Amino acid sequence: MSEHVYKVIEVVGSSTEGSDKAIENAIAKAAKTIHHLDWFQVVETRGHIVAGKVGHYQVVLKIGFRIDD
Amino acid sequence: MSEHVYKVIEVVGSSTEGSDKAIENAIAKAAKTIHHLDWFQVVETRGHIVAGKVGHYQVVLKIGFRIDD
Amino acid sequence: MSEHVYKVIEVVGSSTEGSDKAIENAIAKAAKTIHHLDWFQVVETRGHIVAGKVGHYQVVLKIGFRIDD
Amino acid sequence: MSEHVYKVIEVVGSSTEGSDKAIENAIAKAAKTIHHLDWFQVVETRGHIVAGKVGHYQVVLKIGFRIDD
Amino acid sequence: MSEHVYKVIEVVGSSTEGSDKAIENAIAKAAKTIHHLDWFQVVETRGHIVAGKVGHYQVVLKIGFRIDD
Amino acid sequence: MSEHVYKVIEVVGSSTEGSDKAIENAIAKAAKTIHHLDWFQVVETRGHIVAGKVGHYQVVLKIGFRIDD
Amino acid sequence: MSEHVYKVIEVVGSSTEGSDKAIENAIAKAAKTIHHLDWFQVVETRGHIVAGKVGHYQVVLKIGFRIDD
Amino acid sequence: MSEHVYKVIEVVGSSTEGSDKAIENAIAKAAKTIHHLDWFQVVETRGHIVAGKVGHYQVVLKIGFRIDD
Amino acid sequence: MSEHVYKVIEVVGSSTEGSDKAIENAIAKAAKTIHHLDWFQVVETRGHIVAGKVGHYQVVLKIGFRIDD
Amino acid sequence: MSEHVYKVIEVVGSSTEGSDKAIENAIAKAAKTIHHLDWFQVVETRGHIVAGKVGHYQVVLKIGFRIDD
Amino acid sequence: MSEHVYKVIEVVGSSTEGSDKAIENAIAKAAKTIHHLDWFQVVETRGHIVAGKVGHYQVVLKIGFRIDD
Amino acid sequence: MSEHVYKVIEVVGSSTEGSDKAIENAIAKAAKTIHHLDWFQVVETRGHIVAGKVGHYQVVLKIGFRIDD
Repeated sequence: MSEHVYKVIEVVGSSTEGSDKAIENAIAKAAKTIHHLDWFQVVETRGHIVAGKVGHYQVVLKIGFRIDD
Repeated sequence: MSEHVYKVIEVVGSSTEGSDKAIENAIAKAAKTIHHLDWFQVVETRGHIVAGKVGHYQVVLKIGFRIDD
Repeated sequence: MSEHVYKVIEVVGSSTEGSDKAIENAIAKAAKTIHHLDWFQVVETRGHIVAGKVGHYQVVLKIGFRIDD
Repeated sequence: MSEHVYKVIEVVGSSTEGSDKAIENAIAKAAKTIHHLDWFQVVETRGHIVAGKVGHYQVVLKIGFRIDD
Repeated sequence: MSEHVYKVIEVVGSSTEGSDKAIENAIAKAAKTIHHLDWFQVVETRGHIVAGKVGHYQVVLKIGFRIDD
Repeated sequence: MSEHVYKVIEVVGSSTEGSDKAIENAIAKAAKTIHHLDWFQVVETRGHIVAGKVGHYQVVLKIGFRIDD
Repeated sequence: MSEHVYKVIEVVGSSTEGSDKAIENAIAKAAKTIHHLDWFQVVETRGHIVAGKVGHYQVVLKIGFRIDD
Repeated sequence: MSEHVYKVIEVVGSSTEGSDKAIENAIAKAAKTIHHLDWFQVVETRGHIVAGKVGHYQVVLKIGFRIDD
Repeated sequence: MSEHVYKVIEVVGSSTEGSDKAIENAIAKAAKTIHHLDWFQVVETRGHIVAGKVGHYQVVLKIGFRIDD
Repeated sequence: MSEHVYKVIEVVGSSTEGSDKAIENAIAKAAKTIHHLDWFQVVETRGHIVAGKVGHYQVVLKIGFRIDD
Repeated sequence: MSEHVYKVIEVVGSSTEGSDKAIENAIAKAAKTIHHLDWFQVVETRGHIVAGKVGHYQVVLKIGFRIDD
Repeated sequence: MSEHVYKVIEVVGSSTEGSDKAIENAIAKAAKTIHHLDWFQVVETRGHIVAGKVGHYQVVLKIGFRIDD
C-alpha cells in the first residue's frame, strides 16, 4: 500500500439544504466519472443569500483518489 | 453589473441546534437592517461546551452586500 | 475570573451522520476524562469516501478547558 | 499623531477594465460617504469569466480611515 | 445566551507608550459610540520608527459586540 | 441553480505586458478546451527578471467551471 | 543535545495587567506540573472587554519542553 | 517563452524509504501520462505510523507543466 | 471504524543525520509511552547551525492516535 | 545549474500609475546595486489614499538573485 | 513621495523585561548601521523559559527603510 | 545572552541529491561570508523536473545569525 500515488482535485458542491449536503452532492458528482475516490477535505464554506436567507450553501472541497496502474 | 461596489461585514451567529443554523441566525439578523445581502463566507466555526456537550455553536461569517447608489 | 489558565488539546471526532455529529462525538469522548471543558474551535473538516459516498466525516477540533488549582 | 484611532472596512470593487481600476472604483465609492480615507490593502483578486474572457475583475480591499474626534 | 448575534469590527489603535496601551486606546475610542463591546483579538502589531526609536505602536484589532434587539 | 457542481483547476498565465494580461492569457488558453468557465481567483503574482527589468509576469490562478450533466 | 525529543503543549494565560503578564501567568502555571519548560511562542493575543475597557488579556501560547528519558 | 500557459495539478506520493523518495514516486507516476513536467512544490509532508515506526511517508505536491499548443 | 475519536499531540524530533531521521526519532520516543500511534504531519522543519554546518535538524510534528475505550 | 544558491530580499516599490509600475520601480531600483536579479514574487499590494483617490500604489515584493562565486 | 523604494529586513530582538522592550532593542541595534528606519511589523513573539519563568522575550520583526538615491 | 539582536536572511539552496543536501548547500554558501550562523527554518521545498525526474531540489530557508557588537 505504501507506494501508491494519489491525485487531488478541487470541486465545489452546492445545496439548498445544508453544508453537509453540499459536500455529499460534490462527491456524488465526482463519483460518476472517477473510481476509487478515497478522501475529502473542506477548503471553504460559503453561499449565496436570497431574500435575506441562505439561498444555497457552497462548499469548496479537495477530493483525493488513487491513480490506477 | 460589472462596476458595482460591495461592502463586507463580519458577524458571529450562534445556535444550540447546529453550525448551519448558526449561519442562518446570523444572516436573518443582518437582513433586518441591511438590504440586498448577497453572499457569505465562513471564517471560523467554534462554540461553548456546557456539561460535557456542545452548549451552542458559534460561526464567524463574512457577509457581502451591494452598496446602493 | 481574569487570572485563570486554560489548556488546549487537539482531537479528531468522526461520524457517519454529519460534521456536527463528529464534533459532538469528540467532545463527548473528551468529557469522559476531562472536567470543565469550556470551548471548541474547528481546525479542519475532512472525511473518507466509501463507494462514492461520504463514509464518515472527520472534524479536527481544539478543545479548551480550565486547569484546576 | 501617535494616539489616533483608525477604522478598517472591507469592500469589493469591480471593473471591466482591470484590477487597478477595480481598486479605484471601490475607493471612489467609499469616499462618497467617508472622509479622510487613508490607506488600502488588497485582500484578494478575483473575477467572473464571460464567454471565455474576463467579464470583470473584482478586488477585495481593506480601507482604513481615521475616526474623527 | 445561545442565539445571540455579534458584529465584529476592525480598528487600529496607536500609542507612544506600548502595544498594550495601543489596544486600550482603540477600545476606549470604540466604546464611545458602541455599547456592549465584548471581546477583542489582535490581528497585527506594527508601528512607526522616528529617529531610530519606536515613534508609536499601532495595533490592528478585531472587536466583537452583541447586536441589540 | 443551487445544486450545481463546479470543478476548480489551477493554471499559470504569463505575459510581457502586465499582470492583468497574464490573467487574460491563462483564461483564453483554458477556454479553448473547457466550456462554461465561470470565475477566477488569483493565487500568486510573480515573474522573471531579465537584464534588471520584468521579463514577464506570471500569475497563478484558480479557474472554476460548471460540470455539465 | 542533538537527539532530544520535545513535547509542545498549548495553554491560554490571562491577566488584568497586560499581555506579557498573561504569558507569565500561563508559564508559571505550567511550571507547577512540568519540569524543564524550554521555550514559548505566542499563537494569539485576545481578551474580554468589560464596561468599555480591557477586562483581561488572554494570550494563547505554545510551550515546549524536553521529554526526559 | 513569456506567453506560455501552465497547468498545476496536485498529487500525493508515498514511500517507505523517505520523504524525497515519496516526491520522486509521485513525479515518476505523473510523468507516465503527462509530458513536459516542469516544476514541483511541496504542499504537505505526512505519513502513517505502523507499530511505532514510520510505515510510509506521504508528500502532497503541486506539479506544473506547460500546456502544449 | 467511523465513530472513533483521535488525539493529536505536537512533538519536536531532532537528529544530526537528516530531517527524515528527526521525524523517526520523534515517533520512536512517542511510541514508548503511547500505543496505537496512527499518523503524523510535519508542521515545521528547522535546525541549529554549528561552525557553518547543520548541527542538527529539528522537525515539529503532529502525531495522531486513537483514544482507546 | 543545480547547485546554485540564491538570496531573496524584500523591497517595497511605489507608483502613482499602477500596481505593475510599482513592481517595475522596485526592480529598477534593486538592479542598480545588485546584478543577476532572477525572479520576483508579490507579497502584498497596498497604497495610500489622498483626497478620496489612490495617491500611490505600494507593492511589497520578494526578489531573488544568484550569489556569485 | 510616491515613487520611493523601501527595503525590508528581518531582525530578532530580545529582552528580559518584556515584548515591547525586545522590539525596542532590535530597532536600536538596526538604527546603529541603517539610517531612515521607517516602520516595523511584528512577525512572531516567542522566548526562552528558565527555571519556570520567562528568561527572555524574543520578538521577530520586519523593519522597513527608504533606499537613498 | 538575553539582550542579543539577530538578523534573519532568506536564501535558496539547490541540490541534485535531495532536500537535506539543498539545505546544507545553502548554509555552506552563507557561512563563507557571514560568521556565527545560528539557526535555519525551511520556508518552502520545491524543484525542477527534467525528463520526468527531479532535476534538482530547491529549498527556501531563513537563516538567523547574531549581529556582532
